[in-house]
Amino acid sequence: MESYQTELLEASKRISPFIHRTPVLSSTLIDQIVGASVMFKCENFQKGGAYKIRGATNAILKLNPEKRALGVVTHSSGNFAQALSLAAKSCGIEAHIIMPENAPLVKVNAVKTYGGIIHQSKSTLEDREAVSKSVMQHTGATFIHPSNDLDVIFGQGTACLELLQDYPNLDVVFVPVGGGGLIAGSAIAVSYLSKKCEIIGGEPFEADDAYRSLKSGRIESNVSTNTIADGLRTQLGDKNFPIIQKHVKQIIRVTEDEIVEAMRLIWERMKIIVEPSSAVAFAALKRESDQFKGKSLGVVISGGNVDLSNLPF
Amino acid sequence: MESYQTELLEASKRISPFIHRTPVLSSTLIDQIVGASVMFKCENFQKGGAYKIRGATNAILKLNPEKRALGVVTHSSGNFAQALSLAAKSCGIEAHIIMPENAPLVKVNAVKTYGGIIHQSKSTLEDREAVSKSVMQHTGATFIHPSNDLDVIFGQGTACLELLQDYPNLDVVFVPVGGGGLIAGSAIAVSYLSKKCEIIGGEPFEADDAYRSLKSGRIESNVSTNTIADGLRTQLGDKNFPIIQKHVKQIIRVTEDEIVEAMRLIWERMKIIVEPSSAVAFAALKRESDQFKGKSLGVVISGGNVDLSNLPF
Repeated sequence: MESYQTELLEASKRISPFIHRTPVLSSTLIDQIVGASVMFKCENFQKGGAYKIRGATNAILKLNPEKRALGVVTHSSGNFAQALSLAAKSCGIEAHIIMPENAPLVKVNAVKTYGGIIHQSKSTLEDREAVSKSVMQHTGATFIHPSNDLDVIFGQGTACLELLQDYPNLDVVFVPVGGGGLIAGSAIAVSYLSKKCEIIGGEPFEADDAYRSLKSGRIESNVSTNTIADGLRTQLGDKNFPIIQKHVKQIIRVTEDEIVEAMRLIWERMKIIVEPSSAVAFAALKRESDQFKGKSLGVVISGGNVDLSNLPF
Repeated sequence: MESYQTELLEASKRISPFIHRTPVLSSTLIDQIVGASVMFKCENFQKGGAYKIRGATNAILKLNPEKRALGVVTHSSGNFAQALSLAAKSCGIEAHIIMPENAPLVKVNAVKTYGGIIHQSKSTLEDREAVSKSVMQHTGATFIHPSNDLDVIFGQGTACLELLQDYPNLDVVFVPVGGGGLIAGSAIAVSYLSKKCEIIGGEPFEADDAYRSLKSGRIESNVSTNTIADGLRTQLGDKNFPIIQKHVKQIIRVTEDEIVEAMRLIWERMKIIVEPSSAVAFAALKRESDQFKGKSLGVVISGGNVDLSNLPF
């Protein structure tokens, strides 16, 4: 574990020239509503509009110069695709993004804006992996998983590290749980920087693999992924699950209505744009606010990439 | 003029315990789009969600204690009604708000939330003034105009004062023009704090009284007020117009499409919620961006109070 902590601190130093140190905001009205002090770490203001640039940048910078020069590959149709493209561009290398042929045009265009090279695959797992393999063979590029990669995990943990550097007395930090990269990295930050702070995950009932995995002690699959929190439809992996198992005592599940309500409350009261996946952590806090009365809480707002033409209100 | 500058600085000191010193944000992508450096003074993060609390608080604190104790009155169905209610609450006095009987429920409720006492009037000017007069007679409360009042103007100018304290080298500051309180106050700040900085107003074509008043040299009325920027439908007044005439060389008019496009760009790129009236200043900059290439620009984001159920995208 000691080495994980060192890795986290080194990741923070390594990526700092490439990322924003995002602000921490709070709202008196929200504090009143939940009966606690809540500090929001605003990764929606991060480059690329989400925390994912942290892990992507760390993973790229950890490659040795020869390997790095050959570029990187990932498959994602979400924020990680944008983040890896942007991180690769900052580092002067190519990012190859495998996207399903039915990916929304808005996401395809976002990746192109950041300079990512798109390779289409059929929407089956087999074809996606076949296309990845072919790209890697042709280019020599290194595959970087969006969440199940230790260097990505260390990078993602740096958001929570900064939050705890700014507010060392937090009792609990809430983060959303999707593929598990953010919560695993945040768990390392919390266990390293604070004796008393706890980490709690927020997860939709409609994609509750992490909740059930923690109960059963092995990685469970999502039964459904019918949630508005599209960033949280992914599965835990064998690299992040052991970290989560060790440090996360509680995952709070929330309904779709609770996600939209939490999102709306943040938009209306804090005047910031957060995506549904981001609202899940705050929805979890709000659902169980009786547990946290009078405490000092942190919430990682993971991102703010929404399609304004398709809002839930 | 010297005394105006003193009043502005005193207003800033006087209201500082009651307001937020709001952050100044920027976006690399927006800088690239307009070809200049743009610093956004985020009054959408202000108490009550708009800069109006500044002027309301200053006007209340300027009353002598006996008069102040009797409360304040205004007529507004917008942000100033909320701001005066909130400012009065902070100062431990009553705010009476005259609202037309057809005011939207969401605005009525917002004022109630902040503790304002609502008095309904018919939507004619005569009835509104009759109701105001009657409230003043019964309570002894002092009438505070939302924009045509020098103490309100000094208060509103403190947002621009803070922006110039943080970024003393700005070449131009853009503000939206409605009733004229914000631009008059900002003009005082600019002329006091900077030798080189210019102030430019943004105004909808659909409510361009200030543009036409500057041309003709006398206060003109709005021909239409058919604009999405509902905060800018009001008229200039005899207290703020002379200040505007003296210091504002340029008002740039924008179309409704330009307002919505500017608003969307700020939402998407900066991940902050701004109301249409706020987007008008940035829309003006964007429309005439050729004038400002390579310059150091400031934009006052006046507020973020929008009805999420009724968005223009």
